[in-house]
Amino acid sequence: MRILGIDPGLARVGYGVIETAGREQTMLDCGIIRTDSGRPEGERMVEIARDLRQLIRAWKPELAAVEKFFFYRSSNTIAVVQARGVVIMTLSRFGLPIVEFPPMQIKQALTGHGHADKDEVLEAVMRELSLETPPRPDDAADALAVALTGWFQR
Amino acid sequence: MRILGIDPGLARVGYGVIETAGREQTMLDCGIIRTDSGRPEGERMVEIARDLRQLIRAWKPELAAVEKFFFYRSSNTIAVVQARGVVIMTLSRFGLPIVEFPPMQIKQALTGHGHADKDEVLEAVMRELSLETPPRPDDAADALAVALTGWFQR
Repeated sequence: MRILGIDPGLARVGYGVIETAGREQTMLDCGIIRTDSGRPEGERMVEIARDLRQLIRAWKPELAAVEKFFFYRSSNTIAVVQARGVVIMTLSRFGLPIVEFPPMQIKQALTGHGHADKDEVLEAVMRELSLETPPRPDDAADALAVALTGWFQR
Repeated sequence: MRILGIDPGLARVGYGVIETAGREQTMLDCGIIRTDSGRPEGERMVEIARDLRQLIRAWKPELAAVEKFFFYRSSNTIAVVQARGVVIMTLSRFGLPIVEFPPMQIKQALTGHGHADKDEVLEAVMRELSLETPPRPDDAADALAVALTGWFQR
């Protein structure tokens, strides 16, 4: 099964594509969609939608796994939630089934405990995908962690 | 100048289109995009984007005015902020200039004071657009109020 994991944001959207077969998981792609902070919010979200459509067309995932948020307190996170809406809408336009996981559930699925730190999650991602070097940047690694959670929790 | 006002939401997106000429403002259209609460969030946002595109193509506004939020506390409002992202992104895809106003500024622009109640705002909308009956539902009236604010604050 091919799974697209997404770590949403406005400045950076992390993405990771994995392929699963039996007990083996392989990384096909990972990276970030980066948007220019000097441009208006709306144009940045147009860019996110466009790049995400290209990723979906290129990799044809069967499932999308997206990190979920619960609480927001600053005006900065409002921009992140808005961008997340654009991500969810764009995935839905392709008829992709979407699963969503809060950070604690992702940590739990990958390391066995919900309060794991970043390094423990990163090590688990590398182990599960048989990677010799850590995926960079962090948002791409986070997106792979969400994709793996989508697989483990199916 | 033709202005599209938007009161964002997931269950209901209010919209109002006004035309301004000199000191006269006319209402061209108003209503709501309603989405089915039984369907997945992503599909509801796809519907919002599609209906909004139809409105923009039909009315060809020169400016979009959107109500702005600042703080969110419940998981319900997260859905509203996500849908707002889809609205802003869709407006941007058409290259529409976007102005945003928080509720207090809309009340101030229409009634002269930022703590006006709903009825005072509604009366101001009716007076400014020479309407004999109040625009319904509330979200449509709110969208007209945002559109008028976009005109008054230009």
